Parts: sequence; structure tokens; C-alpha cells
Amino acid sequence: MRYFYVPLDNFSGNKVRITGRELHHLLSVLRLHEGDEISILDGSGGTYKLALLSCQRDVAIGEIKTVERIDPPKVEVALLVGLTKSDKMDMIVQKATELGATKIIPIFCERSVPKLSSKQLQQRIARWNQIVIEASKQSHRPFFPFISNILDFQEALEASESRLKLLFVADFLQLEFRIARRLKDILKANIREDKIDILIGPEGDFTPEEITKAISIGAVPVSLGKYVLRTETAAISALSILLYEKS
Amino acid sequence: MRYFYVPLDNFSGNKVRITGRELHHLLSVLRLHEGDEISILDGSGGTYKLALLSCQRDVAIGEIKTVERIDPPKVEVALLVGLTKSDKMDMIVQKATELGATKIIPIFCERSVPKLSSKQLQQRIARWNQIVIEASKQSHRPFFPFISNILDFQEALEASESRLKLLFVADFLQLEFRIARRLKDILKANIREDKIDILIGPEGDFTPEEITKAISIGAVPVSLGKYVLRTETAAISALSILLYEKS
Repeated sequence: MRYFYVPLDNFSGNKVRITGRELHHLLSVLRLHEGDEISILDGSGGTYKLALLSCQRDVAIGEIKTVERIDPPKVEVALLVGLTKSDKMDMIVQKATELGATKIIPIFCERSVPKLSSKQLQQRIARWNQIVIEASKQSHRPFFPFISNILDFQEALEASESRLKLLFVADFLQLEFRIARRLKDILKANIREDKIDILIGPEGDFTPEEITKAISIGAVPVSLGKYVLRTETAAISALSILLYEKS
Repeated sequence: MRYFYVPLDNFSGNKVRITGRELHHLLSVLRLHEGDEISILDGSGGTYKLALLSCQRDVAIGEIKTVERIDPPKVEVALLVGLTKSDKMDMIVQKATELGATKIIPIFCERSVPKLSSKQLQQRIARWNQIVIEASKQSHRPFFPFISNILDFQEALEASESRLKLLFVADFLQLEFRIARRLKDILKANIREDKIDILIGPEGDFTPEEITKAISIGAVPVSLGKYVLRTETAAISALSILLYEKS
């Protein structure tokens, strides 16, 4: 069964309007018609079965047949990730969505490579939101992660309400941060924590100054082992482990 | 520090010959000279510091200054993964190397998409071996995973000596395999197991027949949660969790 995304704005009583990109997919790719049934996600926990009442070029109307709502995830894991090259960020957003991150916060770091204009930044965010929709449909996830604006590293850390902020240091043996603890020990010591931030640096990692600053704001330096992981591998790996431990 | 790979065949006493692709990288990309120091990996647990004695167009000679050897990983995790599109397999091989799989076994499944000639298969394997080298250098891993020939699904399962064979079923709710257990429960029940196979299907997943066959050979169906993960996400996620639990 293929899933579609329909924002809550397009719901009215038991009728749903399908427009834009999703409509195109419905009509031109899957070639569905009046009478066909589809599944939709509203991105906020609802999954619906619809019967298509009418399919026109600019809008299709569906009638809700069944509704299933799930509670928001009990554990909220936010991924704060150093802005990095476009293809890697795209992959990180896709995988974080599949795995169940509740929030993705791209952050400007000293070593973030792409310097983007504000128009480019807006385009990037729009693109990531589209990736979230596609990945959620693919994995049938009723809750979509929230994509934040791109924040400054310190700003993002200070704005976070999570009490457990895990700072993954890629190559901590090279730095003075041999204090990094094993993720397993930290999670054991914080077994009831249900709001967790994962901080992953860009390619080239956080600078020593950024690490020091993060620690002063309350982040805990963590190691995923003694071998260096790429940004996207560290993000996927850390999220997988966190969500596994908290499930 | 950049790492190079030198196979054990190129060692002789305390001298090391650097040739081919690695030599090209050393001379033309990094522009190193006699007297420069480099780090090398032998792929079998050894990491060396070398001083370059001579750099010529067809060979560079280095003298070993220091040696560090580590023991083979205590826990061996093999990834048996359904052959899938080229870019996804490349990513899986790269990430599995970074994360520390000891063996990668591509398997032909019913739904494996690319039907390849034997020449193409050889090219693929050569390419994966090159990816293993690059990923190991990048993450400074002294042990390289072994890339097996591409095996038939059943053949691979029967050849495996691992007592714990975890069969990750992507969309088990759609099948009759609701018996799939939580990974956490299985790992708790097999806490001392140190040879583990992870089986991940291709895009489109294993067929019900393959699942039945695998179970009859002793594989345990496992779920990574109720949402569907892509092949590469499931592989990276399962490996991350296994190696985390076993570290």
C-alpha cells in the first residue's frame, strides 16, 4: 500500500483535499481513479484510509473510511547536526526520519563547509521538508520530525530543553577530550531521560573551542568507539542506538 | 594524519613497498617526499609509522619506525545483505567497514534487482574491496572486513558458522511473520554469543519463502520496530546496535 501525505489544513469533516505534488503522484504516477482506496498520513500521528470521491487535475477529494491515531513518541530524540555537504545532509535527514528522530536541527559550525546565502538556506530547508515527507511515507511513520531553521551552534544548545545533551566527538583521541565516556555508561546513568539531544559535528568535526563551549553549556562528550566515523555514519549510528535503548 | 594501505605481501623485514593506487595518492595527491612520515595499515591488525626512504614513479620504499598490533575483534559480526542497486551496496559496504563488521556477504535474493554477468560481479567485488580500503583508512581501522563472493541466500546461510543468525524482516506486519521478536530480547537471551550473522533483505525485502527457508535453517526473525526501514538503513542500524551491545 502506497502512502500519501496530506497536511491537516486540507481536512474538513470527513473529507480530505489532495493537491500539489501528492496529487501529481496519485494521478500521473500511480494513475488512481475515483473509487480507489489510498492510505494517508497527516504527519501528526494520524493514519487514514480514504476512498477517492473525485479526481480532477487540480484537486482530488477523498472520504475518510478509517482513522488510526497514535500517541506522540514517549522519548524525544533531537538530532543537532553540523551543516555539511548537500548530499550528506539529505541522507542524514532521510535516515533520521526513517529511524524516528523527533526533531532535526541543522547547525552552523566553524567547520561547516557550505557557506550559503539566505535564499539557498530557505531552499535547503524546503528540500529537507520534502525528504521528511517522502521518508515518512516510505516507512509509514505517522509522526514527522520537525525540521528547524539552521541555528548557530551555541544558540541551538542554549535553546534546547533536553537535559541530556550527548556530544559525539569523532576523533577524541586526537584532542584533549579523552574524558569522553562510553555511550553505554551514560545511558545507564540516565535511564529515565526522555528528552535527549544528539550533537554531531560536520565533516572535520567540532573544533576544540566548540567542544569546550558545549561542555560548559552542559553537553556530555561521548565516544562511539575509538574509530573515526563520518558525520552521516555517526548520526545514523547514534540515533539507532538511542532509539533502540529507549524502546 | 593520512593513512595508507599496504598488503602484507609488500613487507620485507623492516622495509615496505608502496605501489599502485596508494603510491599515486602519496606522490600525486599528497605530494610527499623522501624523509616524510606516513602511517600505514596492513588490514590484518597492524598499524605502522614509516619514514619514506625513496619515492620513485613505480615504487616508494618506507622504513618501519613503530608498530602497533591489535587483537582481532572479540565479537565477529557478519553482514549478509541482499544484493541491491550499486549505490546502495556501495554505501552499505562503506558504512559496515566504518562500524566494524568483520565480514560482508552479498547474497542473491529473489528480489535482488540487478542481474549481473559474471564479469560485472567480479567488477563489483573489486570495487567493494576498494571501498573497504578507503573506509578503513578513513576510520583508522586496523582490521579490514572480508568481502565474500556473492552467494546464494540458502548457500550463505548453510555455510555460516554463527550460532546466532538474526533475520531482519523489514515489513513483518504485512506478512504472517508476526513472530518476529524484539532485537533487545534476543540479544539479552544470547548475551555471550560472539559470532553473529545479520541478514538483511534487498529492496522489496525477503520473500515469504525465503523467510520460511531461513527460519528452517535456524535464523531468528527479528524486528527493528514497526516502521519500515530501507535496506541500507536497516543494515547500518542493525550493525550499530549489535556492535554497541557487544562492546
